Amino acid sequence: MTTRLDLANAIRALAMDAVQKANSGHPGMPMGMADIAEVLWNDFLQHDPKDPHWFNRDRFVVSNGHGSMLLYALLHLTGYDLPIEELKNFRQLHSKTPGHPENGLTPGVETTTGPLGQGFANAVGMAIAEELLAARFNRDGFPLIDHRTYVFVGDGCLMEGISHEAASLAGVMGLGKLVVLYDDNNISIDGEVHDWFADDTPMRFEAYGWQVVRNVNGHDPNEVQIALETARASADKPTLICCKTVIGFGAPNKQGKESSHGSPLGEAEIALAREQLKWPHAPFEIPAEIRAGWDATSKGSERSTAWKQMLDRYAAEFAAEGAELKRRIAGELPADWEQIASAAVAKLAAADKPLATRKCSQMALEAIAPQLPELIGGSADLTESNLTLWKGATASRAGNPTGNHFSWGVREFGMAAAMNGMALHGGIIPYGGTFLVFSDYARNAVRMSALMKIGSIFVFTHDSIGLGEDGPTHQAVEHVSSLRLIPNMETWRPADAFETAVAWRAAIERRNGPSVLALSRQNLPPQAHGADHEAGALRGGYVLLEPLSPPDALIIATGSEVSLAVDAAKKMHAEGRAVRVVSMPCAERFLKQDAAYRDAVLPKSIRARVSVEAGITHYWRAFVGDEGIAMGVDTFGESAPAPAVFKHFGLTVDNVVAAVQGLL
Amino acid sequence: MTTRLDLANAIRALAMDAVQKANSGHPGMPMGMADIAEVLWNDFLQHDPKDPHWFNRDRFVVSNGHGSMLLYALLHLTGYDLPIEELKNFRQLHSKTPGHPENGLTPGVETTTGPLGQGFANAVGMAIAEELLAARFNRDGFPLIDHRTYVFVGDGCLMEGISHEAASLAGVMGLGKLVVLYDDNNISIDGEVHDWFADDTPMRFEAYGWQVVRNVNGHDPNEVQIALETARASADKPTLICCKTVIGFGAPNKQGKESSHGSPLGEAEIALAREQLKWPHAPFEIPAEIRAGWDATSKGSERSTAWKQMLDRYAAEFAAEGAELKRRIAGELPADWEQIASAAVAKLAAADKPLATRKCSQMALEAIAPQLPELIGGSADLTESNLTLWKGATASRAGNPTGNHFSWGVREFGMAAAMNGMALHGGIIPYGGTFLVFSDYARNAVRMSALMKIGSIFVFTHDSIGLGEDGPTHQAVEHVSSLRLIPNMETWRPADAFETAVAWRAAIERRNGPSVLALSRQNLPPQAHGADHEAGALRGGYVLLEPLSPPDALIIATGSEVSLAVDAAKKMHAEGRAVRVVSMPCAERFLKQDAAYRDAVLPKSIRARVSVEAGITHYWRAFVGDEGIAMGVDTFGESAPAPAVFKHFGLTVDNVVAAVQGLL
Repeated sequence: MTTRLDLANAIRALAMDAVQKANSGHPGMPMGMADIAEVLWNDFLQHDPKDPHWFNRDRFVVSNGHGSMLLYALLHLTGYDLPIEELKNFRQLHSKTPGHPENGLTPGVETTTGPLGQGFANAVGMAIAEELLAARFNRDGFPLIDHRTYVFVGDGCLMEGISHEAASLAGVMGLGKLVVLYDDNNISIDGEVHDWFADDTPMRFEAYGWQVVRNVNGHDPNEVQIALETARASADKPTLICCKTVIGFGAPNKQGKESSHGSPLGEAEIALAREQLKWPHAPFEIPAEIRAGWDATSKGSERSTAWKQMLDRYAAEFAAEGAELKRRIAGELPADWEQIASAAVAKLAAADKPLATRKCSQMALEAIAPQLPELIGGSADLTESNLTLWKGATASRAGNPTGNHFSWGVREFGMAAAMNGMALHGGIIPYGGTFLVFSDYARNAVRMSALMKIGSIFVFTHDSIGLGEDGPTHQAVEHVSSLRLIPNMETWRPADAFETAVAWRAAIERRNGPSVLALSRQNLPPQAHGADHEAGALRGGYVLLEPLSPPDALIIATGSEVSLAVDAAKKMHAEGRAVRVVSMPCAERFLKQDAAYRDAVLPKSIRARVSVEAGITHYWRAFVGDEGIAMGVDTFGESAPAPAVFKHFGLTVDNVVAAVQGLL
Repeated sequence: MTTRLDLANAIRALAMDAVQKANSGHPGMPMGMADIAEVLWNDFLQHDPKDPHWFNRDRFVVSNGHGSMLLYALLHLTGYDLPIEELKNFRQLHSKTPGHPENGLTPGVETTTGPLGQGFANAVGMAIAEELLAARFNRDGFPLIDHRTYVFVGDGCLMEGISHEAASLAGVMGLGKLVVLYDDNNISIDGEVHDWFADDTPMRFEAYGWQVVRNVNGHDPNEVQIALETARASADKPTLICCKTVIGFGAPNKQGKESSHGSPLGEAEIALAREQLKWPHAPFEIPAEIRAGWDATSKGSERSTAWKQMLDRYAAEFAAEGAELKRRIAGELPADWEQIASAAVAKLAAADKPLATRKCSQMALEAIAPQLPELIGGSADLTESNLTLWKGATASRAGNPTGNHFSWGVREFGMAAAMNGMALHGGIIPYGGTFLVFSDYARNAVRMSALMKIGSIFVFTHDSIGLGEDGPTHQAVEHVSSLRLIPNMETWRPADAFETAVAWRAAIERRNGPSVLALSRQNLPPQAHGADHEAGALRGGYVLLEPLSPPDALIIATGSEVSLAVDAAKKMHAEGRAVRVVSMPCAERFLKQDAAYRDAVLPKSIRARVSVEAGITHYWRAFVGDEGIAMGVDTFGESAPAPAVFKHFGLTVDNVVAAVQGLL
């Protein structure tokens, strides 16, 4: 008869064998958490291996993502489309089993993890999404959105600062359906943790308002079961289950030691582990009765089918809600999106006075958000500065998740990672704000959104020295450029209300990658826009101002420096010089255009080129070419009123004119 | 008779008046924490306003740095060289009173703060430095290093993830001389915090092993006094003092509200506050008796003079220790540093087999560190991967701070900020390691080291796709370039043992800015080096391989791609092509060289240029010019063995040859 231990040992065997075959990987965590995973997946997790995208599935996140073989083993054994060949191909080029789990690549992988602690914060976002959607769509007798989010975390996740932000948020929000299972194995890479990690973790989580289940033997299925039932009974507190485990459980000489963490166990030790675990089967061989014990396909199919029938009944009874829910599950924009977006751009294009682009961003939200209910906003305690809250928006609060704007507290990293989790959950387009300079705090979550190809929208205001008095700690100089270097990122730095609306449009339409909106604190004058400017701005860069005669010089500018460029060009036009101004709100997008378009905007023949951006100039060398001049700020900023700072750094109309003239 | 309240009100008046005059700034915190600051500075803080660098002073850190006017008021009132004119010039260009406190600019400002939570982690580093130096130098009767580190934190600091890393570290390390005063005013920028910050903070800190003093009325000097005495009595636990305060205390209509936080109170409200506080004096006017109550110059001078006499007696009794302590206080390298450094470079230049540059880094440490006792290392739980531990090094542990290597736990941001604090304290050159991709987690602390012009050394290993199987979450592609964009940063990516030694030399000699060492996981072959290569590498870039005839093409490469470049060039030399290879281990340093040197290495006349770096190519456009080719990796990486990944991305000798030939 198949025991629970046999089932768990299937995970252990697959993990040690796959790591050994790859000669690379982490056997310790899968072997240590196998018993916990077995109980969770076989007795609790609501999912359908044949429909990994079933919307109401429980979400399962491996925040300690180096334990990827645990997840691959679970997916394989329960019936996902992950054949044994893929496990044999662990960590090889183009396999579906990369070193760390990658969302979008492997069916059933809910989020890409590896950077420690972030999976936990992603899970907080998923649990928030569940709560928001449940509040919006569920009706009596129709609990359409009703699932839990389970997270595995290790000591490393809990040492990371982001675990504090995630746990504190989950506590204050009362996310009762969030369940964290802590792999308390007392080991991290440097060895036994007591010299660098002595937190009383249960007490710490109680301080966050969590339900904590202490001292669970992570190798006793009954204890794990009871703990998970305790978690399920919690209405409004997230639950931490502290599982004492042995890392590398089953490997007689390496279990309980850091040596089992991140390297193959070796053939000899694996042979001994097979004996100790009473697992006589060959590598990658799973006996039929064990497979049967794991197979979740029919149960899963029943579940998801019943749910789909409920959704159909719901749609019949509540036509509007049903249609909206289906649309949001599909991740489609509203049918009349084109009209909504065009109207918003037209409205902002009509702005006739200087406005900060952060204000323009709020105006764009006013125009768009009432018709795009999946747009859920927030700010890391800078709501009045980032202007992320719009008139019709309401604050989402613990116990009342009906709003559409979050005060995330001063938690930039946690916010960004939770936003990613909301986007991954589906049904929501998240946006969130902080000062651009503090994108640093959130940097790896911003990167992860690009790696995962998800459409988080980062509203980063106070985008340069233009914020003035707060000084160099708050003045982003390198950030716009350094965000542009992240693959699959699109960084917008709009020049006025019109370009801000275009940037919002582009960010919302871009569902396969994140966008950054870098917005000014200070007022910027509206530019004169022609009929072709929207298409041009959507291509990332366009000719904003053309001289009467064919141009022999170019000024390329972004954001707050576009008006400087225009004023300089007009001055030169008056003197009979033929200078073109190119506005480049999204350089990455421009660089993706075909050569013909790029050459039409920046003709190769024009070598007299000046770029102006209130930040590090190096990025612009590629645009101005060998003979051009890149104007900007190549040091840290200064604390003073903004006009004084701009003058100090020489970003003036006269200096732009002088730079261009020097090239002619 | 002058009361304690009168003294505190001097801070309040200066803060509200300076913010009003600047029409910008944060009056709320200084008015809320004035009473706490008054007790701390007048009754506890050991300092000498006339000698702000007195080595054994207590360190005082305002982690909630937006309260800069509190600090400026304290410095002014106690007698530092910060005249009233500077306070009147708050937040103006070139004043000594910028928006947020800046170390190096204003006497008495121990660290630059503003990015929340980091001051707290800096302070942890300062307290560690104190403990290390005390253990090294103090002798019976000579408590030369014996001071406390006091930190002010606000709700924002405690919401940030870094507060978790800092507090957890301080707890496990038992930093008994660290005292944190928490401004528990229940307000952050978005309003009353209960909807986004409901931690039981005292319980949380007890979970970290801290002594917690709860429920102190932050406006009652007696309660603050007793709490500080309790802190002083703690031997081996850091202390958190939770002070209930009213933000903007004294402003009748704005106190207790977020409206007092970050904007001038307005003339009318200030007039009312003057009444309520019974402060009839004109703006910036401090009555003589109040000045006398604050003046700390004679007490301070007595203290520091007595200490200097103790140091002289110590030096007489313990000549070697005395000389070393004086050298380390002065921040000078050993007298024979030139020999030490040259010997290390020579030793590594002799390496005759392929070695990972992370291994070379460890060899450089073996050669240098035994003779440079101020070099204190560590790793964020990747000691065996970063190879930061060298043979003679010993682990520093709680209760036994005599080692010189720290296991920081999985706390990249906390580590980096604590390293900055150690460097700021003085007497120590800190280095610390993690994977390059996780520099993201530490990003703003890395930035702050550059802004503060301090010499932290960041050892970031596993620097590219060359780490292989761990995959895209762990493969840095944009990081080397994005670190280069930080002003005042120097990012080294050495190609072999020799260049790694040069990089270490440069990083240690650079005491006015940080250095990043980006090091390979995989083995790299040693290159052939000539007599002028050390000088060339120290200039950031140099001609590594020259053809027999004058070159007509250039290959510019860094790190692991230098050998690719050399192999390609040799292949082309065999075919009679004249290709030069330039190794560019530190691009920022090369760009700082004079035009003659730059042109000698990269002659303007040679337009056939190819760069090769296993990362984002955009940075190199400035080097290869309009006609050149930048080879690299412009997407995220792949999980597979390193050679397969390099091949996948086309980084092969044949492709480099083809690229160069295509330009000829």
